[in-house]
Amino acid sequence: MNNLSPDTDTDTDTDTDTDTDTDKAFLRQAIRLAVTSVHNGGGPFGAVIVINGEVVASAGNQVTLNCDPTAHAEVEAIRMAARALGDPHLPDATLYASCEPCPMCLAAAHWAHIPRIVFAAPQETANQAGFADGNIAEQLYGQTHPVRPQRLGLCQIDVEDPAAPFTAWHLKHDRQAY
Amino acid sequence: MNNLSPDTDTDTDTDTDTDTDTDKAFLRQAIRLAVTSVHNGGGPFGAVIVINGEVVASAGNQVTLNCDPTAHAEVEAIRMAARALGDPHLPDATLYASCEPCPMCLAAAHWAHIPRIVFAAPQETANQAGFADGNIAEQLYGQTHPVRPQRLGLCQIDVEDPAAPFTAWHLKHDRQAY
Repeated sequence: MNNLSPDTDTDTDTDTDTDTDTDKAFLRQAIRLAVTSVHNGGGPFGAVIVINGEVVASAGNQVTLNCDPTAHAEVEAIRMAARALGDPHLPDATLYASCEPCPMCLAAAHWAHIPRIVFAAPQETANQAGFADGNIAEQLYGQTHPVRPQRLGLCQIDVEDPAAPFTAWHLKHDRQAY
Repeated sequence: MNNLSPDTDTDTDTDTDTDTDTDKAFLRQAIRLAVTSVHNGGGPFGAVIVINGEVVASAGNQVTLNCDPTAHAEVEAIRMAARALGDPHLPDATLYASCEPCPMCLAAAHWAHIPRIVFAAPQETANQAGFADGNIAEQLYGQTHPVRPQRLGLCQIDVEDPAAPFTAWHLKHDRQAY
Protein backbone atom coordinates (compact mmCIF):
# COMPACT_ATOMS: atom_id res chain seq x y z
CA MET A 1 0.00 0.00 0.00
CA ASN A 2 1.60 3.28 -0.99
CA ASN A 3 1.45 6.68 0.64
CA LEU A 4 -2.04 7.37 -0.71
CA SER A 5 -3.47 4.97 1.88
CA PRO A 6 -6.20 6.50 4.07
CA ASP A 7 -5.00 8.23 7.22
CA THR A 8 -8.15 7.03 8.96
CA ASP A 9 -6.96 3.42 9.12
CA THR A 10 -6.64 2.44 12.78
CA ASP A 11 -6.63 -1.35 12.30
CA THR A 12 -4.02 -3.55 13.88
CA ASP A 13 -1.25 -4.87 11.64
CA THR A 14 -2.97 -8.22 11.29
CA ASP A 15 -6.29 -6.68 10.38
CA THR A 16 -4.54 -4.41 7.89
CA ASP A 17 -2.90 -7.41 6.25
CA THR A 18 -6.29 -9.08 5.96
CA ASP A 19 -7.84 -5.90 4.63
CA THR A 20 -5.08 -5.61 2.08
CA ASP A 21 -5.55 -9.19 0.95
CA THR A 22 -9.28 -8.55 0.57
CA ASP A 23 -8.61 -5.28 -1.22
CA LYS A 24 -6.20 -7.01 -3.58
CA ALA A 25 -8.75 -9.69 -4.41
CA PHE A 26 -11.35 -7.06 -5.38
CA LEU A 27 -8.76 -5.05 -7.30
CA ARG A 28 -7.82 -8.14 -9.28
CA GLN A 29 -11.51 -8.55 -10.08
CA ALA A 30 -11.64 -4.94 -11.34
CA ILE A 31 -8.56 -5.56 -13.49
CA ARG A 32 -10.06 -8.74 -14.92
CA LEU A 33 -13.22 -6.79 -15.76
CA ALA A 34 -11.10 -4.18 -17.53
CA VAL A 35 -9.36 -6.83 -19.64
CA THR A 36 -12.70 -8.47 -20.43
CA SER A 37 -14.10 -5.06 -21.32
CA VAL A 38 -11.39 -4.65 -23.97
CA HIS A 39 -12.14 -8.08 -25.41
CA ASN A 40 -15.83 -7.12 -25.56
CA GLY A 41 -15.13 -3.88 -27.42
CA GLY A 42 -15.16 -1.53 -24.43
CA GLY A 43 -12.46 0.64 -22.89
CA PRO A 44 -9.65 -0.76 -20.70
CA PHE A 45 -11.17 0.05 -17.33
CA GLY A 46 -13.11 -1.93 -14.74
CA ALA A 47 -14.73 -1.17 -11.40
CA VAL A 48 -16.30 -3.13 -8.55
CA ILE A 49 -18.40 -1.82 -5.66
CA VAL A 50 -18.30 -3.75 -2.42
CA ILE A 51 -20.47 -3.38 0.66
CA ASN A 52 -19.86 -5.53 3.73
CA GLY A 53 -17.59 -7.82 1.78
CA GLU A 54 -20.13 -8.44 -1.00
CA VAL A 55 -19.88 -7.23 -4.58
CA VAL A 56 -23.04 -5.19 -5.23
CA ALA A 57 -22.09 -3.93 -8.69
CA SER A 58 -19.34 -4.30 -11.27
CA ALA A 59 -18.80 -2.82 -14.70
CA GLY A 60 -16.39 -2.24 -17.51
CA ASN A 61 -16.06 0.97 -19.49
CA GLN A 62 -19.04 1.32 -21.86
CA VAL A 63 -18.29 4.66 -23.56
CA THR A 64 -18.20 3.43 -27.13
CA LEU A 65 -20.43 0.38 -26.63
CA ASN A 66 -23.27 2.50 -25.15
CA CYS A 67 -22.38 5.68 -27.02
CA ASP A 68 -22.22 7.43 -23.66
CA PRO A 69 -19.21 9.62 -22.81
CA THR A 70 -20.08 9.34 -19.11
CA ALA A 71 -20.12 5.53 -19.08
CA HIS A 72 -16.79 5.08 -17.36
CA ALA A 73 -16.53 1.84 -15.40
CA GLU A 74 -16.75 3.64 -12.06
CA VAL A 75 -19.83 5.67 -13.06
CA GLU A 76 -21.54 2.57 -14.44
CA ALA A 77 -20.82 0.61 -11.25
CA ILE A 78 -22.03 3.49 -9.05
CA ARG A 79 -25.27 3.77 -11.03
CA MET A 80 -25.80 0.03 -10.86
CA ALA A 81 -25.14 -0.14 -7.11
CA ALA A 82 -27.42 2.80 -6.31
CA ARG A 83 -30.21 1.29 -8.38
CA ALA A 84 -29.73 -2.13 -6.76
CA LEU A 85 -29.84 -0.67 -3.26
CA GLY A 86 -32.59 1.84 -3.95
CA ASP A 87 -30.51 4.73 -2.60
CA PRO A 88 -28.34 7.29 -4.43
CA HIS A 89 -25.99 7.29 -1.45
CA LEU A 90 -23.61 4.45 -0.69
CA PRO A 91 -21.95 5.41 2.60
CA ASP A 92 -20.83 1.85 3.38
CA ALA A 93 -19.30 1.12 -0.01
CA THR A 94 -15.77 0.73 -1.25
CA LEU A 95 -15.16 1.45 -4.93
CA TYR A 96 -12.39 -0.65 -6.47
CA ALA A 97 -11.10 0.64 -9.79
CA SER A 98 -8.55 -0.89 -12.12
CA CYS A 99 -7.09 2.58 -12.66
CA GLU A 100 -7.02 5.86 -10.76
CA PRO A 101 -10.43 7.50 -11.28
CA CYS A 102 -10.73 10.61 -13.45
CA PRO A 103 -12.31 13.82 -12.07
CA MET A 104 -15.76 12.80 -13.31
CA CYS A 105 -15.59 9.45 -11.52
CA LEU A 106 -14.06 10.92 -8.37
CA ALA A 107 -16.81 13.52 -8.16
CA ALA A 108 -19.44 10.87 -8.89
CA ALA A 109 -18.12 8.77 -6.00
CA HIS A 110 -18.17 11.82 -3.79
CA TRP A 111 -21.79 12.64 -4.72
CA ALA A 112 -22.62 8.99 -3.94
CA HIS A 113 -21.03 9.42 -0.49
CA ILE A 114 -18.62 6.56 -1.13
CA PRO A 115 -16.02 6.91 1.63
CA ARG A 116 -13.25 4.73 0.21
CA ILE A 117 -11.83 4.35 -3.29
CA VAL A 118 -9.07 1.83 -4.00
CA PHE A 119 -7.30 1.68 -7.34
CA ALA A 120 -4.50 -0.29 -8.98
CA ALA A 121 -2.83 1.52 -11.92
CA PRO A 122 -1.87 5.16 -11.43
CA GLN A 123 -3.34 7.76 -13.72
CA GLU A 124 -0.02 8.02 -15.54
CA THR A 125 -0.51 4.51 -16.92
CA ALA A 126 -3.78 5.62 -18.52
CA ASN A 127 -2.15 8.77 -19.83
CA GLN A 128 0.62 6.76 -21.45
CA ALA A 129 -2.01 4.58 -23.11
CA GLY A 130 -3.57 7.66 -24.69
CA PHE A 131 -6.31 8.54 -22.20
CA ALA A 132 -6.67 12.12 -21.02
CA ASP A 133 -7.44 11.65 -17.33
CA GLY A 134 -4.61 13.72 -15.88
CA ASN A 135 -4.91 16.28 -18.58
CA ILE A 136 -8.59 16.86 -17.77
CA ALA A 137 -7.98 17.36 -14.05
CA GLU A 138 -5.19 19.77 -14.90
CA GLN A 139 -7.31 21.69 -17.37
CA LEU A 140 -10.21 21.92 -14.95
CA TYR A 141 -8.50 22.64 -11.67
CA GLY A 142 -4.78 23.02 -12.34
CA GLN A 143 -4.02 19.75 -10.54
CA THR A 144 -3.25 16.38 -12.07
CA HIS A 145 -4.16 14.56 -8.86
CA PRO A 146 -6.50 15.26 -5.93
CA VAL A 147 -4.78 17.44 -3.38
CA ARG A 148 -5.86 15.56 -0.25
CA PRO A 149 -6.30 11.90 -1.26
CA GLN A 150 -6.43 10.72 2.34
CA ARG A 151 -9.51 12.79 3.11
CA LEU A 152 -11.23 11.35 0.03
CA GLY A 153 -10.39 7.83 1.15
CA LEU A 154 -8.41 7.48 -2.07
CA CYS A 155 -5.83 4.74 -1.88
CA GLN A 156 -3.56 2.97 -4.35
CA ILE A 157 -2.70 -0.65 -3.65
CA ASP A 158 -0.05 -2.55 -5.56
CA VAL A 159 -1.17 -5.71 -7.29
CA GLU A 160 0.50 -7.71 -10.02
CA ASP A 161 0.22 -6.37 -13.56
CA PRO A 162 -2.07 -3.35 -13.10
CA ALA A 163 -1.28 -2.37 -16.70
CA ALA A 164 -2.79 -5.61 -18.09
CA PRO A 165 -5.94 -3.82 -19.41
CA PHE A 166 -3.81 -1.34 -21.34
CA THR A 167 -1.65 -4.13 -22.76
CA ALA A 168 -4.85 -5.84 -23.95
CA TRP A 169 -6.02 -2.50 -25.36
CA HIS A 170 -2.88 -2.02 -27.43
CA LEU A 171 -2.93 -5.60 -28.65
CA LYS A 172 -6.51 -5.22 -29.89
CA HIS A 173 -6.12 -4.09 -33.47
CA ASP A 174 -9.80 -3.22 -33.97
CA ARG A 175 -10.05 -1.15 -30.79
CA GLN A 176 -12.32 1.86 -30.98
CA ALA A 177 -10.41 4.82 -29.57
CA TYR A 178 -12.42 7.56 -27.84
CA MET B 1 -21.91 38.56 -19.90
CA ASN B 2 -19.40 38.54 -17.05
CA ASN B 3 -15.66 38.00 -17.03
CA LEU B 4 -16.02 34.24 -17.48
CA SER B 5 -16.94 34.79 -21.12
CA PRO B 6 -14.73 32.90 -23.59
CA ASP B 7 -11.61 34.72 -24.73
CA THR B 8 -12.01 33.11 -28.13
CA ASP B 9 -14.97 35.31 -29.06
CA THR B 10 -14.04 37.36 -32.12
CA ASP B 11 -17.57 38.29 -33.19
CA THR B 12 -18.55 41.83 -34.00
CA ASP B 13 -20.65 43.69 -31.43
CA THR B 14 -23.83 43.02 -33.39
CA ASP B 15 -23.12 39.31 -33.74
CA THR B 16 -22.26 39.12 -30.07
CA ASP B 17 -25.56 40.76 -29.16
CA THR B 18 -27.37 38.19 -31.31
CA ASP B 19 -25.37 35.36 -29.81
CA THR B 20 -26.15 36.62 -26.34
CA ASP B 21 -29.86 36.83 -27.10
CA THR B 22 -29.77 33.25 -28.39
CA ASP B 23 -27.75 32.15 -25.39
CA LYS B 24 -30.22 33.82 -23.05
CA ALA B 25 -33.16 32.10 -24.71
CA PHE B 26 -31.55 28.67 -24.19
CA LEU B 27 -30.53 29.56 -20.64
CA ARG B 28 -34.12 30.53 -19.84
CA GLN B 29 -35.16 27.12 -21.21
CA ALA B 30 -32.65 25.44 -18.86
CA ILE B 31 -34.00 27.44 -15.93
CA ARG B 32 -37.59 26.54 -16.80
CA LEU B 33 -36.55 22.88 -16.92
CA ALA B 34 -34.98 23.24 -13.49
CA VAL B 35 -38.18 24.71 -12.03
CA THR B 36 -40.26 22.00 -13.70
CA SER B 37 -37.84 19.41 -12.34
CA VAL B 38 -38.56 20.59 -8.80
CA HIS B 39 -42.30 20.42 -9.38
CA ASN B 40 -41.85 16.86 -10.71
CA GLY B 41 -39.89 15.76 -7.63
CA GLY B 42 -36.38 16.20 -9.05
CA GLY B 43 -33.52 18.49 -8.07
CA PRO B 44 -33.44 22.22 -8.97
CA PHE B 45 -31.22 21.98 -12.01
CA GLY B 46 -31.82 21.92 -15.76
CA ALA B 47 -29.65 21.59 -18.85
CA VAL B 48 -30.08 21.93 -22.60
CA ILE B 49 -27.71 20.85 -25.36
CA VAL B 50 -27.79 22.80 -28.59
CA ILE B 51 -26.13 22.02 -31.91
CA ASN B 52 -26.44 24.40 -34.84
CA GLY B 53 -29.22 26.30 -33.11
CA GLU B 54 -31.30 23.18 -32.44
CA VAL B 55 -31.99 21.62 -29.06
CA VAL B 56 -30.80 18.00 -29.30
CA ALA B 57 -31.31 17.09 -25.64
CA SER B 58 -32.67 18.56 -22.44
CA ALA B 59 -33.02 17.25 -18.91
CA GLY B 60 -33.70 18.07 -15.32
CA ASN B 61 -31.86 16.60 -12.36
CA GLN B 62 -32.95 12.97 -11.84
CA VAL B 63 -30.82 11.94 -8.84
CA THR B 64 -33.63 11.00 -6.49
CA LEU B 65 -36.21 10.17 -9.17
CA ASN B 66 -33.88 7.66 -10.88
CA CYS B 67 -31.97 6.74 -7.75
CA ASP B 68 -28.79 7.66 -9.60
CA PRO B 69 -26.22 9.94 -7.93
CA THR B 70 -24.73 10.73 -11.35
CA ALA B 71 -28.03 11.86 -12.88
CA HIS B 72 -27.31 15.57 -12.77
CA ALA B 73 -29.14 17.55 -15.44
CA GLU B 74 -25.97 18.13 -17.44
CA VAL B 75 -24.93 14.45 -17.37
CA GLU B 76 -28.44 13.34 -18.34
CA ALA B 77 -28.51 15.81 -21.24
CA ILE B 78 -25.04 14.74 -22.42
CA ARG B 79 -26.06 11.07 -22.35
CA MET B 80 -29.25 11.83 -24.23
CA ALA B 81 -27.49 13.94 -26.88
CA ALA B 82 -24.74 11.38 -27.46
CA ARG B 83 -27.29 8.60 -27.81
CA ALA B 84 -29.42 10.68 -30.19
CA LEU B 85 -26.44 11.52 -32.38
CA GLY B 86 -24.82 8.10 -32.20
CA ASP B 87 -21.50 9.56 -31.11
CA PRO B 88 -19.98 9.95 -27.62
CA HIS B 89 -18.34 13.17 -28.80
CA LEU B 90 -20.25 16.40 -29.32
CA PRO B 91 -17.67 18.85 -30.69
CA ASP B 92 -20.30 21.20 -32.14
CA ALA B 93 -22.47 21.41 -29.06
CA THR B 94 -23.12 24.11 -26.50
CA LEU B 95 -24.25 22.98 -23.07
CA TYR B 96 -26.62 25.40 -21.33
CA ALA B 97 -27.00 24.83 -17.61
CA SER B 98 -29.28 26.59 -15.15
CA CYS B 99 -26.40 26.60 -12.65
CA GLU B 100 -22.62 26.41 -12.80
CA PRO B 101 -21.72 22.75 -13.43
CA CYS B 102 -20.10 20.70 -10.66
CA PRO B 103 -16.77 18.90 -11.24
CA MET B 104 -18.54 15.72 -12.38
CA CYS B 105 -20.56 17.58 -15.00
CA LEU B 106 -17.62 19.70 -16.13
CA ALA B 107 -15.47 16.62 -16.61
CA ALA B 108 -18.34 14.85 -18.38
CA ALA B 109 -18.65 17.77 -20.80
CA HIS B 110 -14.92 17.66 -21.35
CA TRP B 111 -14.95 13.91 -22.06
CA ALA B 112 -17.81 14.61 -24.51
CA HIS B 113 -15.62 17.22 -26.25
CA ILE B 114 -18.23 19.93 -25.70
CA PRO B 115 -16.37 23.16 -26.44
CA ARG B 116 -18.74 25.66 -24.84
CA ILE B 117 -20.66 25.63 -21.56
CA VAL B 118 -22.96 28.50 -20.65
CA PHE B 119 -24.59 28.77 -17.25
CA ALA B 120 -26.88 31.15 -15.35
CA ALA B 121 -26.62 30.91 -11.55
CA PRO B 122 -23.15 30.83 -10.03
CA GLN B 123 -22.12 27.86 -7.94
CA GLU B 124 -22.51 29.95 -4.79
CA THR B 125 -26.28 30.06 -5.35
CA ALA B 126 -26.36 26.24 -5.27
CA ASN B 127 -24.14 26.19 -2.21
CA GLN B 128 -26.46 28.59 -0.38
CA ALA B 129 -29.37 26.29 -1.25
CA GLY B 130 -27.58 23.39 0.43
CA PHE B 131 -25.84 21.72 -2.51
CA ALA B 132 -22.19 20.79 -2.20
CA ASP B 133 -20.84 21.71 -5.62
CA GLY B 134 -18.10 24.11 -4.55
CA ASN B 135 -17.24 22.01 -1.59
CA ILE B 136 -16.63 18.97 -3.79
CA ALA B 137 -14.32 20.81 -6.19
CA GLU B 138 -12.42 22.17 -3.22
CA GLN B 139 -12.13 18.77 -1.56
CA LEU B 140 -10.98 17.13 -4.78
CA TYR B 141 -8.61 19.69 -6.20
CA GLY B 142 -8.30 22.55 -3.72
CA GLN B 143 -10.20 24.91 -6.04
CA THR B 144 -13.83 25.97 -5.80
CA HIS B 145 -13.90 27.01 -9.45
CA PRO B 146 -12.04 25.93 -12.61
CA VAL B 147 -8.76 27.76 -12.88
CA ARG B 148 -8.95 28.62 -16.59
CA PRO B 149 -12.66 28.94 -17.46
CA GLN B 150 -11.94 30.60 -20.81
CA ARG B 151 -10.01 27.58 -22.08
CA LEU B 152 -12.91 25.34 -21.10
CA GLY B 153 -15.35 27.57 -22.95
CA LEU B 154 -17.07 28.13 -19.61
CA CYS B 155 -19.14 31.27 -19.57
CA GLN B 156 -21.70 32.81 -17.23
CA ILE B 157 -24.45 34.92 -18.78
CA ASP B 158 -26.82 37.03 -16.75
CA VAL B 159 -30.51 36.35 -17.20
CA GLU B 160 -33.44 37.33 -15.03
CA ASP B 161 -34.02 35.28 -11.88
CA PRO B 162 -31.35 32.56 -12.17
CA ALA B 163 -32.22 31.54 -8.61
CA ALA B 164 -35.83 30.66 -9.53
CA PRO B 165 -35.19 26.87 -9.35
CA PHE B 166 -33.79 27.21 -5.83
CA THR B 167 -36.73 29.37 -4.77
CA ALA B 168 -39.06 26.64 -6.08
CA TRP B 169 -36.95 24.06 -4.22
CA HIS B 170 -37.29 25.84 -0.89
CA LEU B 171 -41.01 26.37 -1.38
CA LYS B 172 -41.56 22.68 -2.03
CA HIS B 173 -42.31 21.26 1.39
CA ASP B 174 -42.10 17.62 0.33
CA ARG B 175 -38.75 18.02 -1.44
CA GLN B 176 -36.41 15.07 -1.21
CA ALA B 177 -33.00 16.39 -0.23
CA TYR B 178 -29.94 14.49 -1.48
